[in-house]
Parts: sequence; C-alpha cells; structure tokens
Amino acid sequence: MNIGLIGYGGVGKAFIRLLEEKHIHCSIKYILKSDGGVFNSKGLDINDVIKIEDNIKEHEEWMEGRNFENVIDEKIDFLVELTPTNMKTGEPALTYIKEALNRGINVVTGNKGPILINYLGLKELAKKNNVSLGIGCTTGGALPSITGGRVDCAGARIEEIQGVLNGTTNYILKEMGTKEIEYEEALKNAQELGIAETNPKMDVEGFDTAIKMIILTNALLGKKLTLEDAEIEGITKVTVKDIKEAEQEGKKIKLLGKVFTKKGNIKVKVTPVSIDEEHPLYFVEGKNKGIYYRTDTLGDITIIGGASSTRNAAAAILRDIENIKIMRV
Amino acid sequence: MNIGLIGYGGVGKAFIRLLEEKHIHCSIKYILKSDGGVFNSKGLDINDVIKIEDNIKEHEEWMEGRNFENVIDEKIDFLVELTPTNMKTGEPALTYIKEALNRGINVVTGNKGPILINYLGLKELAKKNNVSLGIGCTTGGALPSITGGRVDCAGARIEEIQGVLNGTTNYILKEMGTKEIEYEEALKNAQELGIAETNPKMDVEGFDTAIKMIILTNALLGKKLTLEDAEIEGITKVTVKDIKEAEQEGKKIKLLGKVFTKKGNIKVKVTPVSIDEEHPLYFVEGKNKGIYYRTDTLGDITIIGGASSTRNAAAAILRDIENIKIMRV
Repeated sequence: MNIGLIGYGGVGKAFIRLLEEKHIHCSIKYILKSDGGVFNSKGLDINDVIKIEDNIKEHEEWMEGRNFENVIDEKIDFLVELTPTNMKTGEPALTYIKEALNRGINVVTGNKGPILINYLGLKELAKKNNVSLGIGCTTGGALPSITGGRVDCAGARIEEIQGVLNGTTNYILKEMGTKEIEYEEALKNAQELGIAETNPKMDVEGFDTAIKMIILTNALLGKKLTLEDAEIEGITKVTVKDIKEAEQEGKKIKLLGKVFTKKGNIKVKVTPVSIDEEHPLYFVEGKNKGIYYRTDTLGDITIIGGASSTRNAAAAILRDIENIKIMRV
Repeated sequence: MNIGLIGYGGVGKAFIRLLEEKHIHCSIKYILKSDGGVFNSKGLDINDVIKIEDNIKEHEEWMEGRNFENVIDEKIDFLVELTPTNMKTGEPALTYIKEALNRGINVVTGNKGPILINYLGLKELAKKNNVSLGIGCTTGGALPSITGGRVDCAGARIEEIQGVLNGTTNYILKEMGTKEIEYEEALKNAQELGIAETNPKMDVEGFDTAIKMIILTNALLGKKLTLEDAEIEGITKVTVKDIKEAEQEGKKIKLLGKVFTKKGNIKVKVTPVSIDEEHPLYFVEGKNKGIYYRTDTLGDITIIGGASSTRNAAAAILRDIENIKIMRV
C-alpha cells in the first residue's frame, strides 16, 4: 500500500507514528506541508521521518516549495488529506481531493471544509473513478459516526439523527455546573487549558456541531444541505441558573445537534437542550462524543465514545483506510 | 439478487415481510421448513407467500418433504439460514451453511449454534469460496455488535469487550428492583408475559450472554473459544436485598459479559455485577442491549440499542445482506 500525505500538523504526525506503531505494511511516498515537502518515489523511511517530525525540513529529501502538483502523478493507493480547513471555499483541499480521485487514488480526509461544501460531488467523482473517499474523521474523529450510520444501520432507514459532537462545549457546560461559574469565566479557563481555541466561535456558537450534522446528513441521507439550511444557536447565552434549574429536574444541558423531517423537508437544528437520563446522549460527558440514530427497522442505535487526541483522530484516518482496503466504505 | 430461506419461524416470516415492505429488488427461490417447502426456480411471488404465511402448506408450490438437498444446486446469491438452534452439534444448520458456502453462496444466519461451534472454520470456507458469512444477528439481533467491532473499530486493537446482551435478565432484574419481588416471582411474571421462556435456563443462567460473548471473541479476535472456556454465573442467586444495596450506592446490577486478557490468555466471564453510572452500560435497560469495546487507539466505543422483535432480528439479517452486497463484511 502506497500512501501520500498532505498536511503535516498534529494529526498528520500522529498518523505517521501510528503507521509505525502498528507495523502497517505500507510505503509513504511523500509528506507535504504548505512550504515544501519530502518525497521519495521508493518510499520514505518512516523512522527517519518520525525522528525529526518537528523539523521535517532537515530531512534529506526535503525540498522547499515542493507542492502537490509536483507529486500528483506518483502512483499511490491512498492520499491522506489533512491540510488546514477552509469552511468557505474548501480550498486548497477541495482541489487536492478532486485531482487525486480523478487519478484513481482513494482519498481519506479529516478536513471538514471540502466535505461540507461538496461531499456528494466528490462522492460521485470517486465512484466514477472506482475509488473511495473516506470522511469518518470529519464528523467526530474517533467516534464511528459515519460507519455507524452507514454500516451499523445498513438496510434500515435513518429517520432522525441526534448528536453531541463538540467536546469544547461539553467541557464548558460541565465546568459552569460543577464550579458554578458563568460562561465567560468557564470559556477563559477552557482557553487557558487549550481545550477552547483563542477564537472559540466555531465551537461555542454551534458551527462545529452544525457542520458535523450537515456532513452526516449529506453522507447518510444523500442530501445537499449547506450551513444556510441549519438553525444554529450556541451555548454563549446559557447561564449557571439555566444549568442549576435543569439539574433540579434531573436534567443536563447539552449542545445538541438534531436532524429530523418537518413537512417532508430535512431540518438541521443545533441548540442547547435540557435532556434527562432517558435521553440516549445524557451521559456523553467531557471529551466524549455521541451520536444517536432512530431507524425504522433496527430500532434506536446510539454510539458513544471516541477519544479526541491527535492520536485518536489519526486512528480514525487509519480506520477509513482499513475499511476501504477491504470493503469500499 | 436471488435468495433462499431455510427456517420459517417468526424471524423468517418477518424477513419475507421486510423484503416486501422495503421493496428490496430480489427473488425468493425457496422457503424450507422442517417438513417441506415451497420452491420456484423463477422466484416465488412474495405477496402470495405473505398472504398465507401461517399456512404456507397451502401454497401451490408447497411440497411435503422437500428439503435442502432438493434445492441446494439452485443458483442463489444468499442463503438465509434461520433453522432452530442446536448449541451442542450446530446441526442441521452447520451442514446447510457448509454446503451453501462450498457452492459459492453467501450465507447470512441468525443461528448461534453453528457459529458457536465452528465460526472460524466456516469463515475460512467462505473465504476459500470467495463468499461471505454474515453472523450479525447472532450476537444481539439489531444491536450492531459485529459491525461495531469489525468496522467501527477497524485499524484499532480491541483490548476488552463488555456486553449487556440479554433482554430477559435485564427485565427480571429491573422487575425485582422496582416491584421488590424475589427472583422466582419476577421470573414467573416474565414467563407469563412471554419475555422469559418456559425453560429459562439459557437466559437466566447466563449461557445466552456467554455464547454471544464467545461468538464476538472468536469473530473479532480470531480465537477458537468454546463454552468450556467461559466462567458463567447467571442471575438466579441475585436477591432483592442485593439490588437494594446496590441502589443505595447509586448502582445497578446487570448480567455483564466480559472478555479480557489475563496472563496473556483471553478470558470470558459472565456474572451479575454492580455497576455505577460511570460504567458505559449502566443505562442499558429493558429490551435494549449494549456492547462496549475498549480499544488501543480509538478510545472506548459503546453501542447501545437494537430493539428485539422478530422484525428487528429480520432487519439484522437484511443489514448483513446489504453490507455483504456492497462491502463483503
């Protein structure tokens, strides 16, 4: 198995380490960053790469300015696409993915941008070229939400999806309740711990959850929804009082994504909701995530878990590769 | 897609109805019972069959004494095997499955007997003949425990499995707690409601759970365990006092199946255990089932659900067929 990697941040590095740790029989032909990359058509020595992963420019195969165009015609089985996300244009990832699929290369990505923007188009392109596009990492990392909806629910119709898919908001809501501190303070704490980003908008305003729910809807229900189709409210207006009132009723407030049908149309809604312990996602805490599928013939299926380090995200990439290798997910 | 069905009890009938309800593009060539069967090499009319499902002997294609040998060389894509279970010999299902695999026919079964006895042998036979063997229905019906372990956890190593996989014992334990009645009375009630069988041994003594855990272990970890390898204790000695004491500590008693490694050996243990709400299977109640996988790189993955009517079991059979059709699970 020959692999090319584009994007070499935390998950990319963890992915290379994982290949080594698990003794995956494969050959890495190239690793590209925004300003250059390493390449060897006979395969790079993984251990050499890992030794200097934070200083990859010191690698003897490094070439400043080497880019995707330089290596695109190299024969590989999988392109692993982990470049920075652009939710507006999906670029440059969208182009990378298209170019690879057009050349009969399977693609596995952890990048929400291109998948949010044109999953169905890319899926069609993959099909046309008789290859696969793995997107499991985009909708909750290690949480098997795509395989859960596609394989675990095969043969059934998914009638509703609910998800608690954002660890940052889970954490902030929990902190607010246990420490009785308001949103702003809990956010600041989360930022200091590196759990929330400096610009937390994507997480706390619900966009991250909405994007994941939209990708799931498009991938599992064959829709072409965009962010415009979602009704989104984040957790910024939740107060300690709200949380305490919910607690008195035995409830918890979660940032819940919902996909359901209303008057024949699919709706996506993200909003803080009080749920009690009868709700299948009540116990999704901390960094955990959870997804719930209501189906017509297989009953309710809830999947909880999926730790969220870079190592776990890399394992989600590897999961797609392994599934595509034997099954064409 | 051409299908043959052997075994026409509750799940078999529900399966035929499901094919019709879901407008699955297929042709049923035969339906066999222990004393005869219907057969048409051009395909039976599904609606005709459904109309007289409880009086299938009145079907114009019925032939008394028609058996598997009479139809085995008919070209079909899937044999759906739903004959009564024999946990000791696996027969006659074991022979049916072998004969079909040897003829290049995919097999999907809901029958624990042959799978408990020789899953790996059958799997090899399937591989040799380039077909698949679907066993998802044997380890919790609609609960996607096999696809959960195989596809959702692909690329990771499963280090531990835990399961609450028996609805009857769930129900009895819950009744004992809420109604404060002892085991014998709760069992009697469950029997009157048809939730427990007249001979409840398989469920209440833990064998059903143990068999499911062994099948999962053999299928997911490539082992060849038998019932002899499991340490099994059922719920017959659990008292109301035990349940109340657990409740006072915020715990519930569940009949828990566990697969773990001890001194390098795989162990299977089924026993009533007090678990608190930190445990991923704490909220598996009533007819619900749950399975938990601890993995090395994807974290903990818990799947809960899977309603357990004959319709849901039939949907589990259909799930395997759909997955095999496109992916070769």
